[in-house]
Amino acid sequence: MKEIKIGILGLGTVGTGIAKILYDNAPLITSRLGATLTLKKCADIDLQKNRGIQFEDGVLTSDAYEVVNDPEIDIVLEMIGGETIAKDLILKAIDNGKHIVTANKALLASQGNMLFKKATEKGVSIAFEPSVGGCMPIIKTIRESLVGNHIVSISGILNGTCNYILSKLTNEGVSFKDALSEAQAEGFAEADPTLDIEGFDTAHKLAILSSIAYGAEINLNDIYVEGISNINAMDIEFANQCGYRIKLLAITKFTKNAAIDARVHPTMIPFSNPLSNVNGSLNAVTISGDAVGDIMLYGHGAGMMPTASAAISDTIDIARDLLNGIHTRVPMLSFKMDRIKKIPAQPIDEISTYYYIRFSALDQPGVLSKISGILGDHDISIKSVHQTERKSNGAVPIFMLTHQAKEAEIQKALSKIFSLDVITVSPSLIRIEGSN
Amino acid sequence: MKEIKIGILGLGTVGTGIAKILYDNAPLITSRLGATLTLKKCADIDLQKNRGIQFEDGVLTSDAYEVVNDPEIDIVLEMIGGETIAKDLILKAIDNGKHIVTANKALLASQGNMLFKKATEKGVSIAFEPSVGGCMPIIKTIRESLVGNHIVSISGILNGTCNYILSKLTNEGVSFKDALSEAQAEGFAEADPTLDIEGFDTAHKLAILSSIAYGAEINLNDIYVEGISNINAMDIEFANQCGYRIKLLAITKFTKNAAIDARVHPTMIPFSNPLSNVNGSLNAVTISGDAVGDIMLYGHGAGMMPTASAAISDTIDIARDLLNGIHTRVPMLSFKMDRIKKIPAQPIDEISTYYYIRFSALDQPGVLSKISGILGDHDISIKSVHQTERKSNGAVPIFMLTHQAKEAEIQKALSKIFSLDVITVSPSLIRIEGSN
Repeated sequence: MKEIKIGILGLGTVGTGIAKILYDNAPLITSRLGATLTLKKCADIDLQKNRGIQFEDGVLTSDAYEVVNDPEIDIVLEMIGGETIAKDLILKAIDNGKHIVTANKALLASQGNMLFKKATEKGVSIAFEPSVGGCMPIIKTIRESLVGNHIVSISGILNGTCNYILSKLTNEGVSFKDALSEAQAEGFAEADPTLDIEGFDTAHKLAILSSIAYGAEINLNDIYVEGISNINAMDIEFANQCGYRIKLLAITKFTKNAAIDARVHPTMIPFSNPLSNVNGSLNAVTISGDAVGDIMLYGHGAGMMPTASAAISDTIDIARDLLNGIHTRVPMLSFKMDRIKKIPAQPIDEISTYYYIRFSALDQPGVLSKISGILGDHDISIKSVHQTERKSNGAVPIFMLTHQAKEAEIQKALSKIFSLDVITVSPSLIRIEGSN
Repeated sequence: MKEIKIGILGLGTVGTGIAKILYDNAPLITSRLGATLTLKKCADIDLQKNRGIQFEDGVLTSDAYEVVNDPEIDIVLEMIGGETIAKDLILKAIDNGKHIVTANKALLASQGNMLFKKATEKGVSIAFEPSVGGCMPIIKTIRESLVGNHIVSISGILNGTCNYILSKLTNEGVSFKDALSEAQAEGFAEADPTLDIEGFDTAHKLAILSSIAYGAEINLNDIYVEGISNINAMDIEFANQCGYRIKLLAITKFTKNAAIDARVHPTMIPFSNPLSNVNGSLNAVTISGDAVGDIMLYGHGAGMMPTASAAISDTIDIARDLLNGIHTRVPMLSFKMDRIKKIPAQPIDEISTYYYIRFSALDQPGVLSKISGILGDHDISIKSVHQTERKSNGAVPIFMLTHQAKEAEIQKALSKIFSLDVITVSPSLIRIEGSN
């Protein structure tokens, strides 16, 4: 029986899950792969912690370089995260001719172009299914199942913490603060939740997806990012009355001008969009291809075993290549490396979509006329308007839905409206997708 | 630039879609594959039909054997369907050392074991992603993305015609007959819809999925099959009142006794199950793995371009193998061929689930007592009962939901109840999944 040897860097949640699958499902893996996957070394700074796994003698080490320098190890699974030590270890492993599996979306989003170039030079693969969407086979679906399709767009719920919080706000009416505390108590949200809440984690994932969808260099800086911390109960309630849910969506579209429109922001989507029914910490992504139409994948976007399952899938893909004496059978970024190019980004200012706007105005005659006058000056047509008697800090909320309008005009109009004496706080804006 | 040569058997809907993708998306495919896919020959009995494709000279032929005997062709895409000519052509192509891509679920379900054995002997692959679920990458997800998982169960909506009809009945209250006519008018349903309506098409697909999920020989005959032709408006209305939708589900589970519980029948599922929201001709499948939990795939389960996209995905997978000088990198049935075994089926009699039952009874005193007495004798506990005043043919309907019960006992009880003088027609039964 042939044998492929594995090393794991980091026995945190996902690293531990990978070791569990390698030990517990070893006979299953052998019967599918026709070879054994042997866990040769695992590195972690904490070797005392009880992880519920009976590691074989000599597997555990506190020196991560023992893993990347082990001449017998074929595939290194980097599950440390972050952009410092993890990067150094990956570079060393590549330099030693080892293939890489990583869940490190932050590192790939910021330095992926360099890493993929290095891997190509050394003739090794970097696999990254666990970096986006946990157990959902997003990377494989785009790269392999939709290989004959021009990808038109991708829309996804890619952060479990944000979706958990928005679901709590929507379905239980709790406050943002309480929802976040519950997410932290349940282990979804980090102690410092900024990366999740402000949309950056989602943007890291979107940068990777945009790249493999369109054959583009990874470009995190061109993604427009807006988090969910300003969403409030009034927005959710009004959205619900109009048949919408508010989700933090990662959106990427290939525009008519051959640019990439990639953005992360709270988005109102109609109930008829299946993403609107994705609740709690679950993730889902809709991929549109020119042949397939829409495909949706749905599942656990994070967590020990789902993410570990994706890492095992990548590991076995590489193992199959190794057993056949080949490498990088499927191009890492979906297109052959010499076809990957810089693709310009469409700035958020240039998008054209539907908008929800909430104004907070003093209850005086003529307010609506002033607001709608400014909107009209900017070619923004109002689809519906709703004003309630409910006062907050002496002001009344005015809710509006617009027809399709240009972002640049919307921003100019909102800025002018905010400068009116009768407007008490900065207007809230949520973009709408899938309306008409 | 390297070249892989393709032959298509049958230019029906899917075959035409494949040719379209090969011509229209050729540059895209080359930039991903690093080689060209050349359409060398297409066979169809009707060469006069305008398919909107400018075929290159010499590509079209009315002799299918010209395709399978062409020494230059590497991969044959069988898109004829049926179990006679298609089988002969596939066997001849295998014999000539060609790899096969097929959408022919009926053939694989009935004779797949023989075909996969022949292919293994000749060292070629049979790929069949387009045979199940159209564009959804079900086969790839089970075989590759969930390779480290024991598959626990699969539940899916795998027939667009049935789902279209059930959606019409549920959402628009039309009659079964009218819904079927509309499905035929829209091109979903065949002129003879028996294969769809009676569940056989779904069973063909389930036979394939059960095999790759558990490493089992394909065994169509062991699947319990019940179609949707007996579902009526009262069932749908009552289900709705109780928070359920009725869907034709394909279900396969690996039981504690290491048997396969595979069945196709109308199933009541709670609104909270995402499959309940899958409407119209769309398909969806939920796969449960021991590591990933539930993954759902959702998309067009049929149609020209979605199914063609799946065929192209398989073709490129084989092309990548050929370009690397290897074959059958991923075992066709997910497990190495020498691990595929006969796995016993759990007979439907032995399942234990929740039930919905509708009785049609004369409006007389003591009827409910007689019915519930017989159910009690068979250890069937009633969860809720609902009797209406609405009469049909002098009888009133009685609706019941049971707690978990044994199928054999349910069937015995229903048979006894039907023999009562007060029961006018055979009771209707719908199994419930995902209740508790």
